[in-house]
Amino acid sequence: MEKPYYAVIFTSERTEGDHGYDEMAKQMIELASQQPGFLGVDSVRNERGVGITVSYWDSLEDIEQWKAHAAHQIAQEKGKQQWYERYSVRVCKVEREYGFEK
Amino acid sequence: MEKPYYAVIFTSERTEGDHGYDEMAKQMIELASQQPGFLGVDSVRNERGVGITVSYWDSLEDIEQWKAHAAHQIAQEKGKQQWYERYSVRVCKVEREYGFEK
Repeated sequence: MEKPYYAVIFTSERTEGDHGYDEMAKQMIELASQQPGFLGVDSVRNERGVGITVSYWDSLEDIEQWKAHAAHQIAQEKGKQQWYERYSVRVCKVEREYGFEK
Repeated sequence: MEKPYYAVIFTSERTEGDHGYDEMAKQMIELASQQPGFLGVDSVRNERGVGITVSYWDSLEDIEQWKAHAAHQIAQEKGKQQWYERYSVRVCKVEREYGFEK
């Protein structure tokens, strides 16, 4: 990805049971990927319900717009009511990156 | 955590088999937590071997020092030789954060 760009780190712990979560999570990733400035997403959840999702964006404005998106707002509200025990959101500027591939 | 601070996002895919990985991963998290400037860590891997670890640090210098730590260097080398199919490291400045807890 071309710098400068931004990462949103979403760490969370799920409540018990699905309550429509899996379907909504899929929809949100699909919808996010259609937004202006979306660059990509990495998402992992383990068997104990602890998850980290990192999405990558062109600008802070793109991140704000996605946060304010109507369908995403509904998902955020359901997240607090039903799906999450706790979560943290950190909005970050990517300063440098490197990688490895076999 | 008090701003400004930094996050290192490590996304990876493991190779098949353990090859001493679990023990070394535990040791590295314990060792990292003893380094100057270490603020915390979130780490998740799923059943398909895809993982995200985010560590939090006071400064870019602290991150550099941890990267250069002798025991960590050995782990990084074994990581490339044996443990990882691929990985990405992104060093980020945390611009803002918020959270939710039930």
